[in-house]
Amino acid sequence: MTGAELHFEVQQFYARQMQCLDSGDAVGFADTFADDAVFVHVPGEVVRGRARIAAEIARNVERVQQAKAVRRHWFGMLVFEAESDDLIRTRYAAITSSTSMDGTASLGASSLVEDVLVRRDGRLWTTSRTVHSDGAPR
Amino acid sequence: MTGAELHFEVQQFYARQMQCLDSGDAVGFADTFADDAVFVHVPGEVVRGRARIAAEIARNVERVQQAKAVRRHWFGMLVFEAESDDLIRTRYAAITSSTSMDGTASLGASSLVEDVLVRRDGRLWTTSRTVHSDGAPR
Amino acid sequence: MTGAELHFEVQQFYARQMQCLDSGDAVGFADTFADDAVFVHVPGEVVRGRARIAAEIARNVERVQQAKAVRRHWFGMLVFEAESDDLIRTRYAAITSSTSMDGTASLGASSLVEDVLVRRDGRLWTTSRTVHSDGAPR
Repeated sequence: MTGAELHFEVQQFYARQMQCLDSGDAVGFADTFADDAVFVHVPGEVVRGRARIAAEIARNVERVQQAKAVRRHWFGMLVFEAESDDLIRTRYAAITSSTSMDGTASLGASSLVEDVLVRRDGRLWTTSRTVHSDGAPR
Repeated sequence: MTGAELHFEVQQFYARQMQCLDSGDAVGFADTFADDAVFVHVPGEVVRGRARIAAEIARNVERVQQAKAVRRHWFGMLVFEAESDDLIRTRYAAITSSTSMDGTASLGASSLVEDVLVRRDGRLWTTSRTVHSDGAPR
Repeated sequence: MTGAELHFEVQQFYARQMQCLDSGDAVGFADTFADDAVFVHVPGEVVRGRARIAAEIARNVERVQQAKAVRRHWFGMLVFEAESDDLIRTRYAAITSSTSMDGTASLGASSLVEDVLVRRDGRLWTTSRTVHSDGAPR
Protein backbone atom coordinates (compact mmCIF):
# COMPACT_ATOMS: atom_id res chain seq x y z
CA MET A 1 0.00 0.00 0.00
CA THR A 2 1.15 3.58 -0.55
CA GLY A 3 1.46 5.84 2.48
CA ALA A 4 -1.64 7.73 1.36
CA GLU A 5 -3.72 4.54 1.12
CA LEU A 6 -2.61 3.32 4.54
CA HIS A 7 -3.24 6.79 6.02
CA PHE A 8 -6.74 6.78 4.54
CA GLU A 9 -7.42 3.35 6.04
CA VAL A 10 -6.24 4.56 9.46
CA GLN A 11 -8.39 7.70 9.25
CA GLN A 12 -11.46 5.58 8.47
CA PHE A 13 -10.58 3.22 11.31
CA TYR A 14 -10.49 6.13 13.78
CA ALA A 15 -13.65 7.74 12.39
CA ARG A 16 -15.61 4.53 12.92
CA GLN A 17 -14.01 3.79 16.29
CA MET A 18 -14.77 7.21 17.70
CA GLN A 19 -18.28 7.46 16.21
CA CYS A 20 -18.98 4.23 18.16
CA LEU A 21 -17.68 5.81 21.35
CA ASP A 22 -19.50 9.10 20.87
CA SER A 23 -22.80 7.36 20.13
CA GLY A 24 -22.42 5.49 23.43
CA ASP A 25 -21.64 2.06 21.90
CA ALA A 26 -18.99 0.83 24.37
CA VAL A 27 -19.02 -2.70 22.94
CA GLY A 28 -18.60 -1.46 19.34
CA PHE A 29 -15.74 0.73 20.52
CA ALA A 30 -14.03 -2.12 22.40
CA ASP A 31 -14.44 -4.36 19.33
CA THR A 32 -11.88 -2.16 17.53
CA PHE A 33 -9.29 -3.16 20.14
CA ALA A 34 -7.31 -6.38 19.90
CA ASP A 35 -8.22 -9.15 22.31
CA ASP A 36 -5.02 -8.54 24.27
CA ALA A 37 -4.95 -4.73 23.87
CA VAL A 38 -3.60 -2.41 26.52
CA PHE A 39 -5.41 0.88 27.24
CA VAL A 40 -4.02 3.53 29.59
CA HIS A 41 -6.07 6.69 30.13
CA VAL A 42 -5.28 7.25 33.81
CA PRO A 43 -1.55 7.44 34.64
CA GLY A 44 -0.37 4.15 36.12
CA GLU A 45 -3.70 2.35 35.57
CA VAL A 46 -3.40 -0.27 32.85
CA VAL A 47 -6.68 -1.64 31.47
CA ARG A 48 -5.81 -4.96 29.80
CA GLY A 49 -7.94 -6.91 27.33
CA ARG A 50 -11.00 -6.12 25.26
CA ALA A 51 -13.54 -7.17 27.91
CA ARG A 52 -12.08 -4.87 30.56
CA ILE A 53 -11.82 -2.02 28.05
CA ALA A 54 -15.52 -2.48 27.23
CA ALA A 55 -16.45 -2.39 30.93
CA GLU A 56 -14.31 0.70 31.61
CA ILE A 57 -15.78 2.53 28.62
CA ALA A 58 -19.34 1.52 29.53
CA ARG A 59 -18.95 3.27 32.90
CA ASN A 60 -17.49 6.28 31.12
CA VAL A 61 -20.39 6.40 28.63
CA GLU A 62 -22.89 6.13 31.50
CA ARG A 63 -21.39 9.19 33.22
CA VAL A 64 -21.71 11.19 29.99
CA GLN A 65 -25.31 10.11 29.52
CA GLN A 66 -26.21 10.99 33.11
CA ALA A 67 -24.90 14.49 32.44
CA LYS A 68 -27.49 14.66 29.61
CA ALA A 69 -24.84 15.92 27.23
CA VAL A 70 -23.44 14.62 23.94
CA ARG A 71 -19.68 14.25 24.03
CA ARG A 72 -17.67 14.15 20.83
CA HIS A 73 -13.98 13.40 20.36
CA TRP A 74 -11.82 15.39 17.94
CA PHE A 75 -8.40 14.23 16.74
CA GLY A 76 -5.77 16.45 15.18
CA MET A 77 -2.12 16.66 14.14
CA LEU A 78 -1.87 12.91 13.62
CA VAL A 79 1.74 11.79 13.14
CA PHE A 80 1.74 8.45 11.40
CA GLU A 81 4.63 5.96 11.36
CA ALA A 82 4.07 2.73 9.45
CA GLU A 83 6.68 0.08 10.18
CA SER A 84 4.79 -2.03 7.63
CA ASP A 85 1.22 -2.28 6.30
CA ASP A 86 0.54 -4.38 9.41
CA LEU A 87 2.11 -2.31 12.22
CA ILE A 88 1.48 1.41 12.53
CA ARG A 89 2.32 3.81 15.32
CA THR A 90 0.37 7.07 15.64
CA ARG A 91 0.67 10.10 17.91
CA TYR A 92 -2.07 12.74 17.88
CA ALA A 93 -3.83 15.44 19.85
CA ALA A 94 -7.36 14.74 21.09
CA ILE A 95 -10.00 16.88 22.72
CA THR A 96 -13.66 16.47 23.60
CA SER A 97 -16.62 18.78 23.21
CA SER A 98 -19.72 18.36 25.32
CA THR A 99 -23.04 19.76 24.09
CA SER A 100 -26.01 20.14 26.45
CA MET A 101 -29.62 19.99 25.39
CA ASP A 102 -29.84 23.79 25.58
CA GLY A 103 -27.22 23.98 22.82
CA THR A 104 -24.32 25.24 24.94
CA ALA A 105 -21.02 23.46 24.41
CA SER A 106 -17.80 23.25 26.37
CA LEU A 107 -14.40 21.63 25.95
CA GLY A 108 -12.82 18.87 28.00
CA ALA A 109 -9.09 18.68 28.67
CA SER A 110 -6.91 18.09 25.61
CA SER A 111 -4.50 15.17 25.51
CA LEU A 112 -1.70 13.64 23.49
CA VAL A 113 -2.44 10.04 22.52
CA GLU A 114 -0.04 7.31 21.40
CA ASP A 115 -1.45 4.26 19.64
CA VAL A 116 -0.13 1.05 18.15
CA LEU A 117 -2.34 -0.41 15.43
CA VAL A 118 -1.90 -3.89 13.98
CA ARG A 119 -3.47 -5.74 11.07
CA ARG A 120 -4.84 -9.19 11.88
CA ASP A 121 -7.37 -11.19 9.86
CA GLY A 122 -7.32 -8.48 7.21
CA ARG A 123 -8.37 -5.55 9.37
CA LEU A 124 -6.85 -3.02 11.77
CA TRP A 125 -7.04 -3.20 15.55
CA THR A 126 -5.77 -0.94 18.31
CA THR A 127 -3.35 -3.04 20.29
CA SER A 128 -2.12 -0.25 22.56
CA ARG A 129 -3.45 3.21 23.48
CA THR A 130 -1.84 5.58 25.96
CA VAL A 131 -3.65 8.85 26.70
CA HIS A 132 -1.52 11.62 28.23
CA SER A 133 -4.00 14.19 29.54
CA ASP A 134 -2.94 17.84 29.45
CA GLY A 135 -5.16 18.46 32.47
CA ALA A 136 -3.03 16.55 34.99
CA PRO A 137 -0.28 18.16 37.12
CA ARG A 138 3.10 18.08 35.37
CA MET B 1 -9.94 6.09 -8.44
CA THR B 2 -8.37 4.60 -5.32
CA GLY B 3 -10.12 5.17 -2.01
CA ALA B 4 -7.36 7.55 -0.98
CA GLU B 5 -7.75 9.66 -4.13
CA LEU B 6 -11.53 9.86 -3.75
CA HIS B 7 -11.17 10.70 -0.05
CA PHE B 8 -8.73 13.49 -0.94
CA GLU B 9 -11.19 14.88 -3.49
CA VAL B 10 -14.00 14.83 -0.91
CA GLN B 11 -11.81 16.56 1.69
CA GLN B 12 -10.98 19.33 -0.80
CA PHE B 13 -14.65 19.63 -1.70
CA TYR B 14 -15.58 20.16 1.95
CA ALA B 15 -12.70 22.56 2.61
CA ARG B 16 -13.79 24.81 -0.26
CA GLN B 17 -17.50 24.50 0.56
CA MET B 18 -17.05 25.45 4.19
CA GLN B 19 -14.49 28.21 3.55
CA CYS B 20 -17.24 29.75 1.36
CA LEU B 21 -19.75 29.49 4.18
CA ASP B 22 -17.39 30.80 6.85
CA SER B 23 -16.35 33.78 4.71
CA GLY B 24 -20.04 34.67 4.36
CA ASP B 25 -20.40 33.66 0.69
CA ALA B 26 -23.89 32.09 0.77
CA VAL B 27 -24.11 31.89 -3.04
CA GLY B 28 -20.69 30.20 -3.34
CA PHE B 29 -21.76 27.75 -0.63
CA ALA B 30 -25.07 26.98 -2.33
CA ASP B 31 -23.24 26.48 -5.64
CA THR B 32 -21.68 23.32 -4.17
CA PHE B 33 -25.19 21.85 -3.82
CA ALA B 34 -26.96 20.13 -6.72
CA ASP B 35 -29.82 22.01 -8.32
CA ASP B 36 -32.31 19.61 -6.72
CA ALA B 37 -30.47 19.14 -3.43
CA VAL B 38 -32.21 18.59 -0.12
CA PHE B 39 -30.88 20.31 3.03
CA VAL B 40 -32.26 19.62 6.50
CA HIS B 41 -30.74 21.47 9.45
CA VAL B 42 -33.89 21.95 11.52
CA PRO B 43 -35.77 18.70 12.31
CA GLY B 44 -38.76 18.32 10.02
CA GLU B 45 -37.92 21.40 7.89
CA VAL B 46 -36.76 20.40 4.42
CA VAL B 47 -35.07 23.11 2.35
CA ARG B 48 -35.26 21.95 -1.26
CA GLY B 49 -33.27 23.27 -4.22
CA ARG B 50 -30.15 25.40 -4.58
CA ALA B 51 -31.98 28.74 -4.65
CA ARG B 52 -33.78 28.09 -1.37
CA ILE B 53 -30.59 26.80 0.23
CA ALA B 54 -28.82 30.04 -0.80
CA ALA B 55 -31.63 32.15 0.71
CA GLU B 56 -31.65 30.15 3.95
CA ILE B 57 -27.89 30.38 4.31
CA ALA B 58 -27.87 34.11 3.48
CA ARG B 59 -30.16 34.74 6.48
CA ASN B 60 -27.91 32.57 8.62
CA VAL B 61 -24.78 34.45 7.48
CA GLU B 62 -26.47 37.77 8.21
CA ARG B 63 -27.20 36.73 11.79
CA VAL B 64 -23.54 35.80 12.29
CA GLN B 65 -22.36 39.12 10.83
CA GLN B 66 -24.76 41.10 13.03
CA ALA B 67 -23.21 39.40 16.04
CA LYS B 68 -19.86 40.85 14.86
CA ALA B 69 -18.21 37.47 15.22
CA VAL B 70 -16.41 35.14 12.82
CA ARG B 71 -17.91 31.69 12.79
CA ARG B 72 -15.89 28.71 11.58
CA HIS B 73 -17.04 25.15 10.97
CA TRP B 74 -14.90 22.16 11.96
CA PHE B 75 -15.50 18.63 10.70
CA GLY B 76 -14.15 15.48 12.29
CA MET B 77 -14.40 11.68 12.33
CA LEU B 78 -15.58 11.53 8.72
CA VAL B 79 -16.83 8.06 7.77
CA PHE B 80 -16.73 7.71 4.03
CA GLU B 81 -18.68 5.17 1.97
CA ALA B 82 -18.18 5.29 -1.79
CA GLU B 83 -20.78 3.26 -3.71
CA SER B 84 -18.85 4.34 -6.82
CA ASP B 85 -16.60 7.25 -7.85
CA ASP B 86 -19.87 9.10 -8.56
CA LEU B 87 -21.93 8.43 -5.41
CA ILE B 88 -20.47 8.85 -1.95
CA ARG B 89 -22.13 8.83 1.45
CA THR B 90 -20.43 10.53 4.39
CA ARG B 91 -21.21 10.81 8.10
CA TYR B 92 -19.19 13.18 10.27
CA ALA B 93 -19.19 15.31 13.40
CA ALA B 94 -19.34 19.08 13.00
CA ILE B 95 -18.96 21.96 15.41
CA THR B 96 -18.64 25.72 15.11
CA SER B 97 -16.38 28.21 16.83
CA SER B 98 -17.31 31.86 17.08
CA THR B 99 -14.58 34.46 17.59
CA SER B 100 -15.42 38.00 18.67
CA MET B 101 -13.38 41.06 17.81
CA ASP B 102 -11.92 41.08 21.33
CA GLY B 103 -10.38 37.67 20.59
CA THR B 104 -12.63 35.57 22.82
CA ALA B 105 -14.02 32.42 21.25
CA SER B 106 -16.86 30.07 22.09
CA LEU B 107 -18.30 26.85 20.72
CA GLY B 108 -21.69 26.25 19.15
CA ALA B 109 -23.58 22.97 19.53
CA SER B 110 -21.95 19.95 17.92
CA SER B 111 -23.87 17.86 15.41
CA LEU B 112 -23.72 14.66 13.40
CA VAL B 113 -24.12 15.28 9.69
CA GLU B 114 -25.09 12.84 6.93
CA ASP B 115 -24.36 13.79 3.32
CA VAL B 116 -24.85 12.28 -0.10
CA LEU B 117 -22.39 13.54 -2.71
CA VAL B 118 -22.72 12.89 -6.44
CA ARG B 119 -20.47 13.50 -9.41
CA ARG B 120 -22.11 15.32 -12.33
CA ASP B 121 -20.37 17.16 -15.19
CA GLY B 122 -17.02 16.03 -13.81
CA ARG B 123 -17.32 17.52 -10.30
CA LEU B 124 -18.84 16.73 -6.93
CA TRP B 125 -22.06 18.20 -5.57
CA THR B 126 -23.89 17.77 -2.29
CA THR B 127 -27.25 16.30 -3.20
CA SER B 128 -28.46 15.73 0.35
CA ARG B 129 -27.38 17.03 3.76
CA THR B 130 -29.06 16.20 7.07
CA VAL B 131 -27.75 17.90 10.21
CA HIS B 132 -28.64 16.22 13.51
CA SER B 133 -27.86 18.81 16.19
CA ASP B 134 -26.66 17.52 19.56
CA GLY B 135 -28.24 20.59 21.18
CA ALA B 136 -31.86 19.56 20.63
CA PRO B 137 -33.95 17.61 23.15
CA ARG B 138 -33.69 13.85 22.62
CA MET C 1 3.06 12.15 -7.07
CA THR C 2 -0.72 11.86 -7.04
CA GLY C 3 -2.70 14.59 -5.32
CA ALA C 4 -3.55 12.16 -2.51
CA GLU C 5 0.12 11.32 -1.91
CA LEU C 6 1.16 14.97 -1.85
CA HIS C 7 -1.76 15.83 0.44
CA PHE C 8 -0.70 13.04 2.80
CA GLU C 9 2.87 14.39 2.83
CA VAL C 10 1.60 17.90 3.63
CA GLN C 11 -0.64 16.60 6.43
CA GLN C 12 2.33 14.79 8.00
CA PHE C 13 4.46 17.90 7.62
CA TYR C 14 1.89 19.97 9.52
CA ALA C 15 1.33 17.32 12.18
CA ARG C 16 5.06 17.22 13.00
CA GLN C 17 5.47 21.00 12.75
CA MET C 18 2.62 21.73 15.12
CA GLN C 19 3.44 18.92 17.58
CA CYS C 20 6.85 20.65 17.88
CA LEU C 21 5.19 23.97 18.60
CA ASP C 22 2.66 22.55 21.06
CA SER C 23 5.35 20.65 22.98
CA GLY C 24 7.26 23.94 23.35
CA ASP C 25 10.07 23.11 20.93
CA ALA C 26 10.55 26.52 19.27
CA VAL C 27 13.76 25.45 17.51
CA GLY C 28 12.19 22.28 16.11
CA PHE C 29 9.25 24.35 14.90
CA ALA C 30 11.50 26.96 13.26
CA ASP C 31 13.48 24.16 11.59
CA THR C 32 10.42 23.40 9.45
CA PHE C 33 10.69 26.92 7.97
CA ALA C 34 13.04 27.73 5.09
CA ASP C 35 16.14 29.73 5.93
CA ASP C 36 14.65 32.78 4.20
CA ALA C 37 11.03 32.20 5.25
CA VAL C 38 8.58 35.00 5.97
CA PHE C 39 6.17 34.68 8.91
CA VAL C 40 3.40 37.20 9.59
CA HIS C 41 1.15 36.63 12.61
CA VAL C 42 0.64 40.26 13.64
CA PRO C 43 -0.71 42.51 10.85
CA GLY C 44 2.09 44.58 9.36
CA GLU C 45 4.84 42.84 11.35
CA VAL C 46 7.00 40.66 9.11
CA VAL C 47 9.29 38.18 10.87
CA ARG C 48 11.97 37.24 8.34
CA GLY C 49 14.34 34.26 8.48
CA ARG C 50 14.47 31.08 10.51
CA ALA C 51 16.51 32.53 13.38
CA ARG C 52 14.04 35.35 13.99
CA ILE C 53 11.10 32.99 13.72
CA ALA C 54 12.71 30.76 16.38
CA ALA C 55 13.23 33.76 18.69
CA GLU C 56 9.66 35.01 18.19
CA ILE C 57 8.20 31.58 18.85
CA ALA C 58 10.43 31.03 21.90
CA ARG C 59 8.91 34.14 23.52
CA ASN C 60 5.45 32.90 22.58
CA VAL C 61 6.10 29.45 24.06
CA GLU C 62 7.43 31.05 27.27
CA ARG C 63 4.19 33.01 27.71
CA VAL C 64 2.16 29.81 27.35
CA GLN C 65 4.36 27.97 29.86
CA GLN C 66 4.11 30.82 32.39
CA ALA C 67 0.33 30.49 32.17
CA LYS C 68 0.81 26.84 33.28
CA ALA C 69 -1.44 25.67 30.48
CA VAL C 70 -0.96 23.34 27.52
CA ARG C 71 -1.85 25.00 24.24
CA ARG C 72 -2.69 22.90 21.20
CA HIS C 73 -3.27 24.02 17.63
CA TRP C 74 -6.03 22.56 15.47
CA PHE C 75 -6.19 22.95 11.69
CA GLY C 76 -9.28 22.44 9.55
CA MET C 77 -10.79 22.97 6.10
CA LEU C 78 -7.39 22.86 4.41
CA VAL C 79 -7.58 23.97 0.78
CA PHE C 80 -4.57 22.65 -1.06
CA GLU C 81 -3.22 23.95 -4.36
CA ALA C 82 -0.13 22.22 -5.75
CA GLU C 83 1.54 24.14 -8.56
CA SER C 84 3.95 21.19 -8.70
CA ASP C 85 5.27 18.55 -6.29
CA ASP C 86 7.73 21.25 -5.16
CA LEU C 87 5.48 24.28 -4.65
CA ILE C 88 2.22 24.05 -2.73
CA ARG C 89 -0.11 26.75 -1.50
CA THR C 90 -2.50 26.02 1.37
CA ARG C 91 -5.26 27.99 3.07
CA TYR C 92 -6.83 26.68 6.27
CA ALA C 93 -8.62 27.57 9.48
CA ALA C 94 -6.68 27.31 12.74
CA ILE C 95 -7.69 27.55 16.38
CA THR C 96 -5.99 26.87 19.70
CA SER C 97 -7.20 25.16 22.83
CA SER C 98 -5.61 25.85 26.18
CA THR C 99 -5.91 23.28 28.97
CA SER C 100 -5.09 24.18 32.57
CA MET C 101 -3.80 21.75 35.17
CA ASP C 102 -7.28 21.58 36.73
CA GLY C 103 -8.56 20.11 33.42
CA THR C 104 -10.55 23.12 32.25
CA ALA C 105 -10.03 24.12 28.64
CA SER C 106 -10.76 27.24 26.63
CA LEU C 107 -10.42 28.36 23.02
CA GLY C 108 -8.20 31.06 21.59
CA ALA C 109 -9.21 33.20 18.61
CA SER C 110 -9.63 31.36 15.32
CA SER C 111 -7.71 32.45 12.25
CA LEU C 112 -7.35 31.87 8.54
CA VAL C 113 -3.81 30.94 7.56
CA GLU C 114 -2.14 31.09 4.14
CA ASP C 115 1.07 29.13 3.60
CA VAL C 116 3.52 28.54 0.79
CA LEU C 117 5.43 25.27 1.07
CA VAL C 118 8.43 24.36 -1.07
CA ARG C 119 10.46 21.21 -1.53
CA ARG C 120 14.23 21.62 -1.19
CA ASP C 121 16.82 18.89 -0.56
CA GLY C 122 14.05 16.31 -0.76
CA ARG C 123 11.80 17.65 2.01
CA LEU C 124 9.11 20.27 2.53
CA TRP C 125 9.65 23.66 4.18
CA THR C 126 7.29 26.52 4.98
CA THR C 127 8.61 29.47 3.01
CA SER C 128 5.75 31.83 3.85
CA ARG C 129 3.02 31.89 6.51
CA THR C 130 0.45 34.63 6.97
CA VAL C 131 -1.96 34.34 9.89
CA HIS C 132 -5.16 36.41 9.62
CA SER C 133 -6.62 36.39 13.14
CA ASP C 134 -10.43 36.49 13.43
CA GLY C 135 -10.02 38.30 16.76
CA ALA C 136 -8.77 41.58 15.30
CA PRO C 137 -11.04 44.53 14.40
CA ARG C 138 -12.23 44.34 10.78
